[in-house]
Order: sequence, then structure tokens, then C-alpha cells
Amino acid sequence: MRVPDLLVPGSRVALVAPSGPLRDESDLQHAVDTTRSLGWEPIVGEHVLERDGYLAGSDAHRLADFNRAAADDSIDAVWCIRGGYGSMRLLDELDYGAWRHSTKALIGYSDITALHAAIGRSAQLVTYHGPTARAPLTEFSRASLRAALVDGVNPCGHAPDSVALRDGVARGPLAGGNLALVTSLLGTPYAQQLDGAILVLEDVNESVYRIDRMLTQLRLSGALARVAGIAFGQFTDVPDEPSSEQRPLATLLLEVADRCAVPCISGIPLGHIANQWTVPLGAIAELDADRRTLDVIPR
Amino acid sequence: MRVPDLLVPGSRVALVAPSGPLRDESDLQHAVDTTRSLGWEPIVGEHVLERDGYLAGSDAHRLADFNRAAADDSIDAVWCIRGGYGSMRLLDELDYGAWRHSTKALIGYSDITALHAAIGRSAQLVTYHGPTARAPLTEFSRASLRAALVDGVNPCGHAPDSVALRDGVARGPLAGGNLALVTSLLGTPYAQQLDGAILVLEDVNESVYRIDRMLTQLRLSGALARVAGIAFGQFTDVPDEPSSEQRPLATLLLEVADRCAVPCISGIPLGHIANQWTVPLGAIAELDADRRTLDVIPR
Repeated sequence: MRVPDLLVPGSRVALVAPSGPLRDESDLQHAVDTTRSLGWEPIVGEHVLERDGYLAGSDAHRLADFNRAAADDSIDAVWCIRGGYGSMRLLDELDYGAWRHSTKALIGYSDITALHAAIGRSAQLVTYHGPTARAPLTEFSRASLRAALVDGVNPCGHAPDSVALRDGVARGPLAGGNLALVTSLLGTPYAQQLDGAILVLEDVNESVYRIDRMLTQLRLSGALARVAGIAFGQFTDVPDEPSSEQRPLATLLLEVADRCAVPCISGIPLGHIANQWTVPLGAIAELDADRRTLDVIPR
Repeated sequence: MRVPDLLVPGSRVALVAPSGPLRDESDLQHAVDTTRSLGWEPIVGEHVLERDGYLAGSDAHRLADFNRAAADDSIDAVWCIRGGYGSMRLLDELDYGAWRHSTKALIGYSDITALHAAIGRSAQLVTYHGPTARAPLTEFSRASLRAALVDGVNPCGHAPDSVALRDGVARGPLAGGNLALVTSLLGTPYAQQLDGAILVLEDVNESVYRIDRMLTQLRLSGALARVAGIAFGQFTDVPDEPSSEQRPLATLLLEVADRCAVPCISGIPLGHIANQWTVPLGAIAELDADRRTLDVIPR
């Protein structure tokens, strides 16, 4: 895998909205301010304030902003302002050629998982599963983001709130992201390569039976039998089921760990939470379930 | 495709629960009564009243009931009492050999779509996307069920409440069912063969962006470019989105029809509704979008 160039003061960072609409201009202003606070120059996409229901404007306009940033050699990074839904709709028309000749950083998570998967695979480029640009950037998240993008050192490490579901040590390329998007790409040309991978997974607003369905799809696809290790992040805002139909998420994740028989931890700082790691998808990492650490091997 | 033997008075019908739990014994009693009202003899699975959260008991027990019914030569049909979620978890361990040597009818819908897909493909057997056994059987649903299973005549026909999204006539094997399950099998060995198919799709309790995501996965998989026609059923209990993020389902379905450029209607009696067709998946049908008819070609 190729690794993006490190960002420096004055790096030009395109702010784009390939998925859901921004709430209003304050989202954009926050993204601009955060980019500047990191010493970078924000370059705002032409169409980022448009909206069409749950999409930030038409496919054509979201695509135009994204492809323009990809093809512009003066742009050093593409930072997605928001996730939501919609990037999958663009996958057939991304400018993959531009990404194959680029070492710019792609940053975002949640729905942006689809872009990580498609671009990472096609361009053989490490991409950054990290905060969206509109999110309040806590000190924790800022430190991890800078470690990944500016300093090129391990942005992860010890996960104190995690638990080991199955002990052992595993090493492999980082893959995964948002579970719904990882599974929504199965059976398409954009599915992630998970053989030998350290799989990280998170999701929000998915009931346990839906998480079960998605993990079962991954299992039936054969992918879970071939991963080297699993690090579950946070599954937040899980809707309540009728009390008679509840099944604990912890039970489900333990079933998966036991069935996969690979090192597995649950509860890393990844997901729809304030303090999140920036995870360089495609980079080699070592998962030590006993020590509850996920260490990205320096480039 | 092989076609199940027609049912006759006294046919032995196994009642099983491979997915979600029954509410209580009244669900089972209703299933038994309905089976008898059709002149068939209900054979109740040993474990159908068990529950483990959103599952009707352990995988081992749900599987045991289902596989026992499949392997028992004295059983003429397997009727699922309820959908919900859970049949996917069993797919790797179904007794496919029994189904390959069987001409029994499999009946159910919603989550049962996973069983239709896996068994239909492996056993090259027509299966019946129709009411679950616990559902109140309206006269409409009963007539269609009997047409399919007892009389072997066209159980579908004119869909008065449907609209044509794209005109034309198409012929091919019926495929599809519940959209969430159809897409949850993509990338697995159990994915339906959709080339040249008349694709029927329905779902319940899925917001429009989720339906979008699922249809986009189908598109990216290449399947939608190869279907012969599409007949959308009912999408019921669609949750409200924030008002600023609504996008009409009708807009989405029209986008799909336009992109596929095949005959397409929307609103057939298929889904989580009182009056539903029994659709013989794998049988050849003709979709006439201008006339808004879906006719199953007689065996």
C-alpha cells in the first residue's frame, strides 16, 4: 500500500460533503475553523451546502466536488465534513485514476467507509478512518489525528475501556470501518479485501438483530474465517427492542469472536463518539488482545 | 427448476420457526387452525415455542426442526410460522441434500427470503414467497395461496393498486422477496441468481435511506443491470426521517427503474400487508407493466 504524504502547516485541505447534508452553515464554519486550527488551509467544495433530502445535493454535484479535489494536484488532503448516507451512490463514477496517481490523504468515517474501501482498494492507498470535519475535535481525537496525518507515528495504542473477547496477538493490514457500509459493499467490486486483516468495526443506530444480520453476512461471505484479528469499536444509540426480544450485543460479539477463533477485543475508541482514534486503513497494525493494544507499525 | 407436488386434503405440513420467536401459544394455535382450515394436517416442530431474545430458540434447535421436516419423506410442505430475523444464521447447516431429493413446498416470506434463496438455488426447486402460518389469512391471500399450492394455477395476475414506473413486457424466473435479506446474501454463496429474473421486492420498517442503500448495493453488484423486470411490492412502516432530510420513496424507486431501463411496476400485493400474493420463486412469470399484471406461467 502507498502511504499519503504527511501534512504540514499550510497544507491545502479540501472540505467536501459526499454523503448527507450539513445542518446549516455553522457545520461548514466549524469545519473551516477546525482545519485552520490544525494549521491547514481549507478549500471548500462548491456544492457542500446543497441538500436533496438525506443527500448533500445531487449525485452529480457531490461527485463533482469530490472528483475535483481528487484531481487537483495542489490539494493535499480531502476531508469529509459529514457522513450520513450517500457516498455509495457515487462509487461507480469516482475518478480512480486521480487517486492512483495521488498521495493525498482521505479523512472521514461512518458513511465515508464506502470511499475508503473503494479508493483504498483501487489506488492501493492508505486512507484515514477518522473524525469528520464538522465534528467537535476533542484533545484525544486531535492528538490521534495529528499522530496519523502530521507526525506519521502510531495514532492508536492502548484501549483502556476495551475488553478481550479472545486472547492472542495478530498482525495485518487494517480494514473495516462502519459495519453497515462494510457489509453493503459485499458482492460489489468495492468490497474490502479482508484476508489476513485486522478488522475494525463500529456502528450507530443499529439494533442488535441488524448487527447480527450484518455480522452473519460477513461470516457467510467467508471473510470472518480469513481475518487475522478483530477490534470492535463502539456500537452507539442501539435502539430498544421489545423486552421479550432482547439479546445482548455482548453475547453476539462473543459468538463472533469464538467462531472466528482469532484475537479479538471490543470497545476501542472508534465510532460515533467524542474521543476517537484516527485509524489508517491499509496500514499494518498489531493487535494484542491480552494487552488490549492496537499499534500501527510505523511507516 | 423443479416444482413441488401440489398439496391435497390431508397433506402433512410441518410448522417451523426458523427465525423470530412466536408471541405466545396463540400464534401457534392460529397456525395450526389455519393449516387445518386448508385441509392439511399440521405437524408442529418440537422447538417452535422456544425463545432466545429475537430468535425462536437456539440455532441448534431451530435448525433441528427445520432439517427434520426437510428430511422426513412423509412431510409434504414446510410452512414457517413467523419471519423476524434468524434464518440466515442457519444457512451453512441446512440439509441441502434432503431438499435436493425433495419436492416439498417451502412457504413463508420476510426473513424466510434467506431460506428461499439458499434452498431454491441449491435444490433447483421452486419455493413459495407467501404468508407466514401465524398471519390472519384473508380471503385474498387464501385464494392466492391455494392457487399456487393446491391448484397449480396463476396465483398473481392484475395488480390494481400498482403503478407503472417503466413500460414494457418482460419474462423470466421470479426472484427476490424481502429487500434486506436479498441484499444481506450478496457476496455469500446463497445470493440469488438474478440474471434475466423478474425481481419482486418488499420491506418493512426500513427508512428510505436504508432502502436506497440496499438498492444501491444491488446496483453496484451488477444485478440490476441484468434483471428482466422489476415489480416492487409494499414498503410499509417506513420510519419518519427529520423533515429536512426526507426524500420520497417514489423518487428513489423511479430512479432505479430509469437506471435499469427494464419494465417496472410498483405496488403489487407483496409485503407486510393483509392481502398478499403467494409468489412461486423460481417459476417463470410475465410482467406486463402497461397492463400492470404479473402472470405466473402454468407449470
